Amino acid sequence: MISAALADGTAHRPCVFEVFARRLPSGRRYGVVGGTGRLLERLADFRFSEEEIAVVADSLDERTVEWLRNFRFTGDIDGYREGELYFPGSPVLSVRGGFAECVVLETLVLSVFNHDSAIAAAAARMTSAARGRRIIEMGSRRTHEEAAVAAARASYLAGFHSTSNIEATRRHGVPSAGTSAHSFTLLHTGPDGTDEAAAFRSQVATLGVGTTLLVDTFDITAGVATAIEVAGTDLGGVRIDSGDLGVLARQVRDQLDGLGARGTRIVVSGDLDEYAIAALRAEPVDVYGVGTRLVTGSGAPTAGMVYKLVDVDGIPVAKRSTHKESLPGAKRAVRLHRSSGTAVEEVLFPASGTAPEEPGLQQRELMIPLLRGGEPVPGLPTLEQSREHHAAVMVTLPWEGLALSDGDPAVPVRALAPGR
Amino acid sequence: MISAALADGTAHRPCVFEVFARRLPSGRRYGVVGGTGRLLERLADFRFSEEEIAVVADSLDERTVEWLRNFRFTGDIDGYREGELYFPGSPVLSVRGGFAECVVLETLVLSVFNHDSAIAAAAARMTSAARGRRIIEMGSRRTHEEAAVAAARASYLAGFHSTSNIEATRRHGVPSAGTSAHSFTLLHTGPDGTDEAAAFRSQVATLGVGTTLLVDTFDITAGVATAIEVAGTDLGGVRIDSGDLGVLARQVRDQLDGLGARGTRIVVSGDLDEYAIAALRAEPVDVYGVGTRLVTGSGAPTAGMVYKLVDVDGIPVAKRSTHKESLPGAKRAVRLHRSSGTAVEEVLFPASGTAPEEPGLQQRELMIPLLRGGEPVPGLPTLEQSREHHAAVMVTLPWEGLALSDGDPAVPVRALAPGR
Repeated sequence: MISAALADGTAHRPCVFEVFARRLPSGRRYGVVGGTGRLLERLADFRFSEEEIAVVADSLDERTVEWLRNFRFTGDIDGYREGELYFPGSPVLSVRGGFAECVVLETLVLSVFNHDSAIAAAAARMTSAARGRRIIEMGSRRTHEEAAVAAARASYLAGFHSTSNIEATRRHGVPSAGTSAHSFTLLHTGPDGTDEAAAFRSQVATLGVGTTLLVDTFDITAGVATAIEVAGTDLGGVRIDSGDLGVLARQVRDQLDGLGARGTRIVVSGDLDEYAIAALRAEPVDVYGVGTRLVTGSGAPTAGMVYKLVDVDGIPVAKRSTHKESLPGAKRAVRLHRSSGTAVEEVLFPASGTAPEEPGLQQRELMIPLLRGGEPVPGLPTLEQSREHHAAVMVTLPWEGLALSDGDPAVPVRALAPGR
Repeated sequence: MISAALADGTAHRPCVFEVFARRLPSGRRYGVVGGTGRLLERLADFRFSEEEIAVVADSLDERTVEWLRNFRFTGDIDGYREGELYFPGSPVLSVRGGFAECVVLETLVLSVFNHDSAIAAAAARMTSAARGRRIIEMGSRRTHEEAAVAAARASYLAGFHSTSNIEATRRHGVPSAGTSAHSFTLLHTGPDGTDEAAAFRSQVATLGVGTTLLVDTFDITAGVATAIEVAGTDLGGVRIDSGDLGVLARQVRDQLDGLGARGTRIVVSGDLDEYAIAALRAEPVDVYGVGTRLVTGSGAPTAGMVYKLVDVDGIPVAKRSTHKESLPGAKRAVRLHRSSGTAVEEVLFPASGTAPEEPGLQQRELMIPLLRGGEPVPGLPTLEQSREHHAAVMVTLPWEGLALSDGDPAVPVRALAPGR
């Protein structure tokens, strides 16, 4: 495409591409913008090396090779704040620049947004189901090794408290946490058989009594008794990773209380999703460890966002393919809130126009400038700030938006036609 | 865990960890081992940098920090050939070495295998549904940007013909292919409106008449007519990306034939999975472009493999958690085949023992040495060889194993108890 556009003189026509989802994953009531911060980091050094160019050089003309060699995105990008909610059609990112420059970004932009937003949305549902109880992200081993780092970041954005992925701590400052594995207990096996107490003693000696002991390698009741025997009643926590977690949590709580370990926390893990977390609301669970279902987007592993050309040189454009229509023209978006804060509608309007006034409702502009002339705008939100923003906007959802059951998007989106 | 094991003297106990899936994703009849080659590449430079160590240094004792600084895996790894089929319990990888060394590999090993095997299994089902028609992998933008490269590799392993991810060409030698996007057609919009013919002319001028033109941006019948008008009857292909692909493929084939373009291929794309591919068997489709459903594992985005300690210093071990039992002891595996080649059973037996003889059946040893003393064994299979191996073993599946409908694992796995 770039070769042809360079040859026919269209490569540098000013274009606007928008990123949006035509629909939310089946039954979901809101989406969560994830990946903005990570995209900006990746764009900062997005160039093609000679080694990379060599792969395509043989099949491209010299002009295109030269263009790739000098490539650097020099356009503008606006977008919804990271952590913001989105709905079908919300223009979560607007990329402006010459056609060739913009089209080169397409795959990177969509990969980052489709992955991180899918994870952030699943995490938001889990966070909301947990009602303030802590959730540790533990899913690294169930997804691609690099996706794992991004998933830890996206889950923190959407309210998780920590991650077992230490690389996410290094790269993104996500707090790390973790417990031990069954293998550590089994390691303490000798000719006389297994020795759970030896494993617990070793862990407590190294990590102190504040640590969390994994008590379900053999028999949970015996494991809990051994844990308190070894660590005393100041033991930080016990983890249960199998069985009927609700029943076991109650049983273990009673046992711990009976032993005088009233402050010892109960951590549960094992194929938890938002529904399982909600089902454990009435049980004495202190911390959830969530893995597989988080990193796979809890049934929706991709956000289904697309990157569409909406404006060429000031002319609104759109394809007309069946069921894949998109709204022509560069857009901006406001969300309308009641004075109570509740969101009632999102309105898209032509970028060249002004937002419509709605009496009695407060308008909130959804897009902020992210990149100008290829350079990040100063003062962009940090991950912590985006996390706070996400927590704040979750409160503006109409109450039915927080239901875990299938339903319609919680906030309707209305688009004003271009040229009006 | 490593700190505690270094402190109590267990860190260097010789251990065997095995990777296996307790079950296949719901209804699947076989799994495909993916990721072996990629894991070995990543292990070659798996060390901890000072920058990485700095993140954990404050929370670890000096002995552990020193151990991490000198870390390098020096053990042995055996495993199923990449591309091989697996079933519940198949020990697809066996990692042997000191406890601490082996436990450090856990997350990397599982991330690579859980991702790549999930994609390879989905790709194998699609390849088998396509019955020899070509499939292009086009899913990069629907998954994490690094997972995308691994997905392209895994799909090629399992029979796809090419990928639109050029980085997978650079890193893994996967053949690349692609078509143009709607944005290229829309780019050719002027004050007088859209100009599909100009876009087609430009593409043909640069890429020749062998190219594939995307004909569904506006009206497909008009698009096909314009495509042949511009490129002539030697046009390589047309792509349809929306609508009822079966109906449209027939219609477009008739139109192309009527115009004399009998050799012009029809490429279809748009949310295809193995079921949609199978449903198009009777239609005149030449090439499938598959994206979202491939990179998300077609409903099973992770293979659910685990990494379990099975032997400590020669003593078989296993946890006894509810529904999470694993088989103690280091194992080897053979698959038994009829003289026709059809696989009838997989037998796991203690690594120290010998494979049981079964009269009238041929035995095939499933594990090959991959790493010895931390170094790759010479002559490991290339991706091309693994792709051929995969194609060869697919033929050994009992016929019901290729059904797309839900069912039981196609080959039963029998485990001989350790010590026998």
